Amino acid sequence: MILSPGATIGILGAGQLGRMLAMAALKLGLRTHIFAPEAAAPAYDAAAARTVAAFDDEAALARFAEGVDVVTFEFENVPTATVEFLAERVAVRPGVRALAQTQDRLTEKTFLRDLGLKTAPFAKVEDAGALVRAVAELGRPAILKTRRFGYDGKGQSLIREGSNVAAVHRTLGPAPMILEGFVAFEREVSVVAARSLEGEIVAYELCENEHERHILARTRAPARVSPETAAEAKRIAGQVLEALEYVGVLAVELFVVRDRHGEGLIVNEIAPRVHNSGHWTIEGAQTSQFEQHVRAIAGWPLGASTRRGRAEMHNLIGEDAEEWRDILAQPDLSLHLYGKLEIRPDRKMGHVTRVFPETQNNG
Amino acid sequence: MILSPGATIGILGAGQLGRMLAMAALKLGLRTHIFAPEAAAPAYDAAAARTVAAFDDEAALARFAEGVDVVTFEFENVPTATVEFLAERVAVRPGVRALAQTQDRLTEKTFLRDLGLKTAPFAKVEDAGALVRAVAELGRPAILKTRRFGYDGKGQSLIREGSNVAAVHRTLGPAPMILEGFVAFEREVSVVAARSLEGEIVAYELCENEHERHILARTRAPARVSPETAAEAKRIAGQVLEALEYVGVLAVELFVVRDRHGEGLIVNEIAPRVHNSGHWTIEGAQTSQFEQHVRAIAGWPLGASTRRGRAEMHNLIGEDAEEWRDILAQPDLSLHLYGKLEIRPDRKMGHVTRVFPETQNNG
Repeated sequence: MILSPGATIGILGAGQLGRMLAMAALKLGLRTHIFAPEAAAPAYDAAAARTVAAFDDEAALARFAEGVDVVTFEFENVPTATVEFLAERVAVRPGVRALAQTQDRLTEKTFLRDLGLKTAPFAKVEDAGALVRAVAELGRPAILKTRRFGYDGKGQSLIREGSNVAAVHRTLGPAPMILEGFVAFEREVSVVAARSLEGEIVAYELCENEHERHILARTRAPARVSPETAAEAKRIAGQVLEALEYVGVLAVELFVVRDRHGEGLIVNEIAPRVHNSGHWTIEGAQTSQFEQHVRAIAGWPLGASTRRGRAEMHNLIGEDAEEWRDILAQPDLSLHLYGKLEIRPDRKMGHVTRVFPETQNNG
Repeated sequence: MILSPGATIGILGAGQLGRMLAMAALKLGLRTHIFAPEAAAPAYDAAAARTVAAFDDEAALARFAEGVDVVTFEFENVPTATVEFLAERVAVRPGVRALAQTQDRLTEKTFLRDLGLKTAPFAKVEDAGALVRAVAELGRPAILKTRRFGYDGKGQSLIREGSNVAAVHRTLGPAPMILEGFVAFEREVSVVAARSLEGEIVAYELCENEHERHILARTRAPARVSPETAAEAKRIAGQVLEALEYVGVLAVELFVVRDRHGEGLIVNEIAPRVHNSGHWTIEGAQTSQFEQHVRAIAGWPLGASTRRGRAEMHNLIGEDAEEWRDILAQPDLSLHLYGKLEIRPDRKMGHVTRVFPETQNNG
């Protein structure tokens, strides 16, 4: 199924990623229809149509499928049953496989290890007893995480020297968990890359991320790593895209580590969607990650990922957004606000991008 | 009235200019409400709300005014009575004065002449007899135009040596007309510029336009003129913005002429809105003309107009739009489609921009 201009993209989820996807679709002459349970959310204002319904409302899903030409999602916690139901009626890109392999941290880590990629050491944790054994095996510090529905540091807890293991286990509740060995990384980096319906792969330049309180604070492109490390990261992203027979944009988050062999990479996680660390591409690259995703799921040729300069992106978290007027007054900043009316702590309200032109060719 | 993020901009008109204004508003966290008579049109898909009603439907206008924080327009043929009705209820930017001075070619030319600006020679034409006298005065060739509602060459006709003056007059109907002397120009250029609520003025680089069959075909920035001519064009735009106490983006179209004194400028017309010759600013400038207009009418600081490189914009007219897939496959082209489902001759379906990075500082 290749879309024609004027076709409609269905998007599951109504957050800022959906809003920016809808804006990219508008640029290319496409319509969007947002499906999400929230009554008010950033993406609705940018879409030609909306369905406000639960992800298990099969009647609403069936009507939605009737009215769209392809379905995609803007966050990875859409139930796989929802995607399977839709996939019987309309093309869903990326498919249910990408969701299934990345929603559960244990499945994801196992998938990555089976591809021969380096990950943090990990162990399945089914109960407090298993956690004690896993801590003995992986050592301390280690990070206990729920296998599903974690984001921005939610659903995880550090086990240090002296931590009461059983108490930490209780704080995360009875959910299935995974223990991950601590990685002493030098930097956090990510690759945003796309695969087209025809199998073409285009990766953006490796970028470098700084988190504050487990939330992405800043991204810089390019990352300060060796050319070999940057190339290896792109190779890993390509391998993941092909293994998942992926169509669309994904992000691979990695740790840069240094040992006696030099600089190395450890894969942290995969986000099967456009990603916060790719927002710099709106101003900083020839094709934005949002347009790239739309091109891919439409069955269209991918765009060039060429950088326009050195780029920096800062998230506006919570009260940061109150600075909007000062940001607007700075000539080299580009402001993006997501239309969220209420400022709350840790809420992503918008972002700001600065691109520094480079005189040399950055191919 | 200064808007806060989350506020709603009312837009009169639902064409591609309204669509791109709505997209710029989305980037800045603002909502839009489109008011237009057409049942289907490009801007609706990008807006949070729409009113489909005639421009003289006072009940619909009153409801529209209730629901928006500021009103603007995306084309200059909105009836002034509509704008006056709204202006009693809500801020309208730019105001009715800008519309009134530019909707009628005779009023517009008189306004420009009274500012001391050079225009083509012109004469009021009330009937066939007046036209005969005007042709005798201005010479041939000359261009007979209806005073109102002309665009893309519609409502105008060339009077050559040998033309039957009375016959030409009949083809344009009984409308009030103006005869304009023919200007042997070297190039057509335009300045897109903005004035903020506080009176700050920011102009984009002078650009150069090529028309085919009276429709803009291509724009290049910068224009191939002397630095003095470019500066003079910006000065003229600033003078027009101030004389109209304008808030928002406008375009001034000029002819570059050459005589024994060298290169000179003649003002052709003013468009009191974002303009096709400013589309290159989406990729080619730090702030797009659409974001600039939104900032201005919101009462916000204007953005920088800095060019990112040498830019070229081509309109996709009629069947040109069938090339969309080939355009997408070219890595240095940026495609914009307006969501018009039916291709018709002379219809603006989209545009394509190419930016050539420059190594020197282009300030």
